[in-house]
Amino acid sequence: MLNRNFTTIIQNRIDQKTKPLGSLGVLEDIALQLALIQSQGKEVAATEIKITKPTMLVFAGDHGIAEEKISIAPSEVTAQMVLNFLAGGAAINCFCKANDIAFKVIDCGILCPVEFKSEQLVLQRLGQRTNNFADQPAMNIAAVDKGLEFGAKIVKETINQGSNIIMFGEMGIGNTSSASALLSAISNRSSEECVGFGTGISEEQRNLKVKLVGKGVDRCEGKSIKQILAEVGGYEIVQMVGGFIEAAKQNVPVLVDGFIVSAAAYAATRINPECRDWMIFAHKSEEQGHQILLSELDAEPLLDLGLRLGEGTGAALALPLIRASAEFYNNMASFESAGVTV
Amino acid sequence: MLNRNFTTIIQNRIDQKTKPLGSLGVLEDIALQLALIQSQGKEVAATEIKITKPTMLVFAGDHGIAEEKISIAPSEVTAQMVLNFLAGGAAINCFCKANDIAFKVIDCGILCPVEFKSEQLVLQRLGQRTNNFADQPAMNIAAVDKGLEFGAKIVKETINQGSNIIMFGEMGIGNTSSASALLSAISNRSSEECVGFGTGISEEQRNLKVKLVGKGVDRCEGKSIKQILAEVGGYEIVQMVGGFIEAAKQNVPVLVDGFIVSAAAYAATRINPECRDWMIFAHKSEEQGHQILLSELDAEPLLDLGLRLGEGTGAALALPLIRASAEFYNNMASFESAGVTV
Repeated sequence: MLNRNFTTIIQNRIDQKTKPLGSLGVLEDIALQLALIQSQGKEVAATEIKITKPTMLVFAGDHGIAEEKISIAPSEVTAQMVLNFLAGGAAINCFCKANDIAFKVIDCGILCPVEFKSEQLVLQRLGQRTNNFADQPAMNIAAVDKGLEFGAKIVKETINQGSNIIMFGEMGIGNTSSASALLSAISNRSSEECVGFGTGISEEQRNLKVKLVGKGVDRCEGKSIKQILAEVGGYEIVQMVGGFIEAAKQNVPVLVDGFIVSAAAYAATRINPECRDWMIFAHKSEEQGHQILLSELDAEPLLDLGLRLGEGTGAALALPLIRASAEFYNNMASFESAGVTV
Repeated sequence: MLNRNFTTIIQNRIDQKTKPLGSLGVLEDIALQLALIQSQGKEVAATEIKITKPTMLVFAGDHGIAEEKISIAPSEVTAQMVLNFLAGGAAINCFCKANDIAFKVIDCGILCPVEFKSEQLVLQRLGQRTNNFADQPAMNIAAVDKGLEFGAKIVKETINQGSNIIMFGEMGIGNTSSASALLSAISNRSSEECVGFGTGISEEQRNLKVKLVGKGVDRCEGKSIKQILAEVGGYEIVQMVGGFIEAAKQNVPVLVDGFIVSAAAYAATRINPECRDWMIFAHKSEEQGHQILLSELDAEPLLDLGLRLGEGTGAALALPLIRASAEFYNNMASFESAGVTV
C-alpha cells in the first residue's frame, strides 16, 4: 500500500503554488500521487517529481475465440500489426514518437510469430494462441503462472533500464471478448452488460459474442482469480496482470490504457489490492464495459477522446499531462517566492 | 470560410490508415481540420500537417468592476501575475515549457504597468483599466476599434515570426464578470444563468456579481457587438476578438482556452462568422457559463480536467494532442503500405 504519511506536506506544497486552490483540477491529483510514490521510503517528502525514460509496453497475444468470427479481423492481423509496430507505422508508434516515449512490443503468444529482428521485440510466448474459451479453458494454470512471471520480468527489466513510469498497451484480435469475460466473471455481471462492439462489429456478431462469452463465464463460478484467468483470460492479459503487480512492488506507476488493459488492472487488484495505488487511468474508451471497469476500480481517467483503438494509444496521449503535472509541482512559484498577495 | 473541397480526399487518407474506421475519435477531426486549413489555396490536398513554433499569447487587462470585490483578489494581483509570467513561475510557464510552446504576454491595459524589460512582454495598452461596467460603459468605441487592431497586430507579428498555430490565454482580475456579461448580452440569457463562481468566490459574492453584471447587460439591449464590447468588454477581451478574426484571415488556427477566451471567440464569430472554422477548443472549464458558450459555438473541447485557472493553461495542455494528430496524419502507415489485410 502506498504510504500516505507525506500527503499533507505535499498537498500544502501544491496549495502554495501561485494559483487559486484546486484550480489545476486532476493535474493536482496526479502531482500528489506521483510525489507520494517518489517519497516512498524517504525521510522527507519529494520536492521534485522525476520522469525518466517513459516506456510503452505493448503486450500482444492471440485468442482462440477469434475463430468464431466475432471480431472485425482474423487472427493473422495480430502478427501483421506487430510487424507494423516494429516498422514504426502504427498509431501507437506515432504517438510514442510525438511524446518521446520508448517503445517495446511483447509477443506473449501470437498465432504467427514474426520473423523480424528488433530490439523493440520481446519474446515471452506462452503458446501459439489461447484455446477458444467458449468451449474449453483458454489456458492451463501453469500458463497463468508463467504469464504472471513473464509480465513481472519485462517490467523489472524496463525499470532496470532506467524507466520510472511505464505505460501498458495491447494488441490481439479477440481480446475484447476475453476482457469482457473477465469483467463479467469477476464482477458477477451478465455478459450482456459487459460485451460491447469492440472495434466495430455488427449487432448480429455482438449477440453471438454475448452468448459465447457467457459460456466461458459460466465455467468461472466460484473460482479464484487465477482460475478465472485460465478459463477466459489471454496470454497478453495475464502478462499485464503480472506486470501491474510487479510495478507496484517496484514503486513505479503504470499508465493504464483502455478496456483490455483496464480488465488486466482489475484482475491485478483482485489478486493484490495494493497495486491500485500505482495505477493512473489514461482514457475512457468507447467500449461499453470500460465504464463498468472504471467504476469498479474507482478510476476517473484523464482523457475522453472517443478512442477505440487500443495499442496503448490513450496512455501514450496522456503522458504529456503527467509531464505537465510534474513540471508544475517542480517549478511553479509559490505565492511567497513570486510576491503575489492573494 | 474554410474551403472544404478537399474534405473527401483528406478523410480517405485518414480512413486508409492502419486502424479501424474512426477509432482515433476526435484526433481524426483535428487532423481533418488542420489538413483542410493547410490545403487552403493549394492545388492538391496537404499530405502533411506542419506545426511550426506554436505560440501562447496571454492577454492581460484590468477591470473596473473588480472594485466591487466580486473577485477572489484585488486588481493589483494582475500585475503581480504578469511579473510571475515574465519570471517563468506561473502554471502557464510550466505547461509551455513542458510542451515546447513559445510564450508572450500582452499588457492590454493593466492597473499597474510592470517595470520589467523582456522580449516576452508586449505593450498594447488601451488604458489603465476599464471603467466599472456596472455603472458606465467599460470603454468607448474608439478603444474597441483600437483593441481589435492591436489584437490583429500581435497575431500578424506572431505569424510573421514563424508560428502557424497560436494559443490564446488571459489574465485579469474581474474578467469572468466581463465574459459573463458578454455571453448574457449576446445570447439574450439572464445574468443568473451566465455568472459563475470564477476562481472561487462565495455564494454572497456571486449574488452581487449576478446583479452587477445584469446592470451592464441591461444597457446592451439592441446594440451591435462592438457596442456591447464597449459596454461590458475588457481590454484583453477586445484584443482577443481582433486576434481571432486576424488569425482566420491569415489561415492560422487558434487553440481556445477556457471561459474568458471562449467569450472573446463568441464575440468574434458574431462579428465574422467565418473565423469559427479556424478555432480549436482546448478544454471545458469548471465555470458554469463555459458550457453555454461551447454550445453556442457548437464546440466539443478536447480536454475536461477540472481546470479553473485561465492563463491559457488548458490550451497549452491540449497542444500535444494537436501534435499527435499531425503525427498520425503524416506518418502512420496505410493498410496497403503496411500489408495489413483488414
